[in-house]
Amino acid sequence: MKEAKIMELEKVVDERLKKLSSIGSDPTGGMTRLLYSDSWLEAQKYVKAQMETTGMATKFDDVGNLFGRIEGSEKPEETIMTGSHIDTVVNGGTLDGQFGVVASLTAVQFLQDKYGTPKRSLEVISMAEEEGSRFPTVFWGSKNFVGIANNAEVKDVADADGKKFVDEMHRQGFDFSDKQTRRDDIKAFVEEHIEQGSILEREHEQIGVVNSIAGQRRYDITLKGEANHAGTTPLSYRHDAVYGMAKIVNTALDKAHEIGDPLVLTFGKVVPKPNTVNVVPGEVLFTMDCRHTDADYLVKFTTEIENMMRDVAKQMGLDINIDLWMDEKPVPMSQDIVDTIEGQAKAGHYKYRVMHSGAGHDSQIIAPVYPTAMIFVPSINGVSHNPAENTKFEDLVEGVKLMADTLYQLAYK
Amino acid sequence: MKEAKIMELEKVVDERLKKLSSIGSDPTGGMTRLLYSDSWLEAQKYVKAQMETTGMATKFDDVGNLFGRIEGSEKPEETIMTGSHIDTVVNGGTLDGQFGVVASLTAVQFLQDKYGTPKRSLEVISMAEEEGSRFPTVFWGSKNFVGIANNAEVKDVADADGKKFVDEMHRQGFDFSDKQTRRDDIKAFVEEHIEQGSILEREHEQIGVVNSIAGQRRYDITLKGEANHAGTTPLSYRHDAVYGMAKIVNTALDKAHEIGDPLVLTFGKVVPKPNTVNVVPGEVLFTMDCRHTDADYLVKFTTEIENMMRDVAKQMGLDINIDLWMDEKPVPMSQDIVDTIEGQAKAGHYKYRVMHSGAGHDSQIIAPVYPTAMIFVPSINGVSHNPAENTKFEDLVEGVKLMADTLYQLAYK
Repeated sequence: MKEAKIMELEKVVDERLKKLSSIGSDPTGGMTRLLYSDSWLEAQKYVKAQMETTGMATKFDDVGNLFGRIEGSEKPEETIMTGSHIDTVVNGGTLDGQFGVVASLTAVQFLQDKYGTPKRSLEVISMAEEEGSRFPTVFWGSKNFVGIANNAEVKDVADADGKKFVDEMHRQGFDFSDKQTRRDDIKAFVEEHIEQGSILEREHEQIGVVNSIAGQRRYDITLKGEANHAGTTPLSYRHDAVYGMAKIVNTALDKAHEIGDPLVLTFGKVVPKPNTVNVVPGEVLFTMDCRHTDADYLVKFTTEIENMMRDVAKQMGLDINIDLWMDEKPVPMSQDIVDTIEGQAKAGHYKYRVMHSGAGHDSQIIAPVYPTAMIFVPSINGVSHNPAENTKFEDLVEGVKLMADTLYQLAYK
Repeated sequence: MKEAKIMELEKVVDERLKKLSSIGSDPTGGMTRLLYSDSWLEAQKYVKAQMETTGMATKFDDVGNLFGRIEGSEKPEETIMTGSHIDTVVNGGTLDGQFGVVASLTAVQFLQDKYGTPKRSLEVISMAEEEGSRFPTVFWGSKNFVGIANNAEVKDVADADGKKFVDEMHRQGFDFSDKQTRRDDIKAFVEEHIEQGSILEREHEQIGVVNSIAGQRRYDITLKGEANHAGTTPLSYRHDAVYGMAKIVNTALDKAHEIGDPLVLTFGKVVPKPNTVNVVPGEVLFTMDCRHTDADYLVKFTTEIENMMRDVAKQMGLDINIDLWMDEKPVPMSQDIVDTIEGQAKAGHYKYRVMHSGAGHDSQIIAPVYPTAMIFVPSINGVSHNPAENTKFEDLVEGVKLMADTLYQLAYK
């Protein structure tokens, strides 16, 4: 695939990304295209029209996921599905989500153009929502696609401006699915996405073959001691919440650094009270975000850290509250699909590595239901969710070509 | 002194504190009496009237410090001075500052009533400002009293409402001193104050004889690393500013706790950026407040901590900026005055301890110029600068009596 029609493929990818990046673009750079906004619908309609240029059959589902389908010639009842999400974060970049949609659509049309009708059906999905940036819901698109969306969870929610989820959905012509159903024709799902990290760039590679999405556990931890005058309270009288936090964070990160990949551990938020130079802090709230690709190890490690936290608090005479508010298990990708992608990467002499994803993706919702894997392309400086999000165009093209190679294996062989 | 006229002294202290606490009282409890406000002037006028009830000669200086004087019978040219400040913090308690004014005034009048005219002149000062709560100036009263105020520093400043220092000073009938002068008649200064800590309470003592005011060094420290995605950035790639902060705070406080009194060390403020659960913090600002009674030791210890901070930053690949923005040397009290107070405390069987002050006071401005010492009374739970600030009334009375005993030794012997 690396030689044929390269110029045309590059041109189409470039045009489509430029057009989509203009729909919902922010005046100051970057873009904002939130679920059920006008720019969101405009983008879905553009993708729909692009699907139809080569005669794909298109349809929206009830909630606004868009599908474009080529019926297979020999096994039409077996569908190879590919795609990503069309929504963005607030003032995000121009690749997160929509590059995957463009890559899938362009790869499918490239194959159709070059090889004609596939043996199995090929279908592109442009999912309605993944980011959770407008309403307090994430994976709305993929959850509806695989039939596990919970309508009750979003029925009464509103965005920051007070606009209701239901009203905005109706305004754009969509509604809740009557009941959650699941298709049984889908034999594979392949999603392409930017890495949103800097491993590929640092390692001078162009492709990541994703074999797992890391599990995440997120905590709010509160330590309560006693606020005191910083001058008049001897050290031996104190119950200093920031001292406890520092001992916990330092001990936990020392330990995590000894262990290393694929474990990551982040204490991103620290809010002492009263947060003043001359008062011994009587309270501190801080967060912990821990990720690993092995479910048992993630639980084991975080449980050890929880115990250490309680020990430190006890030694220091602090009250502690540990709130585990997110507990997402790691999601392994399908080894078959991973092997297919890696096989094509090897055969095509792509510069690739097999790796896990530390960030969440629609594929983690789809993988437990259908055989799924992902393709990553590099992110310059690892930046994402930011107008500076970017990838070398040659790397994007490599990603689309590997997607085409993979779909050829899955749908034409 | 412990037996005589106790009832009258208690009654006067109680009445004066109640009256003063009503001038500038906040509707929700506590009080706010800021420099050059109407309540501030009303309080000074009340104290002036109270001074005049026993024939003290009263006067304001140019900036609003109030003096009440009894001329000595044998050595009128030698003045024993006593007092504290009349201003408060915003929504402060009813003892910080004004209790010292009441204690000095009541003790002097008690002596005058019981023993007649003193040999040396006795003078009470109600200082204009100590707290720095309205304008960005502290010790405005004591600095003018000892002739080291810098008018240029406050000439152009305004309060939070935009009211100018100069305009407010003029409005209440005061003005800058033409030139800073220093009296040479003052042979001793004694200030009484609440402890604002909990040492006396915990040790079941009623009196602190203050032999030193701790020096303070305050720092803003900024660590800069790199903000990264908490999921996609391996630990080995990270430059985590909060990790650096935690290592520094933990190491410094472990060391300080090994050393103990009179060293105190506080990291009261911590502000990471962007302060979000799922972003590796690229930056953190935190404060350090270190106090000790020995000037050389304070410099030695903080220099060691500064060096440790730079080492940690270097090891972690973080940029560090260490800004020492307050460097106040410890101020020893006069050993002669301390001995006089302690002698009276011992003779009168007061429950006392000799101690240092970890908080700042007017006495630290006055001590380098005139022989000075302080008397502390306990603070319930160590609370101050808060409507909950309180002291058992019997402890306040003990403090006034020891003040009278001390002034008797200094002015009548």
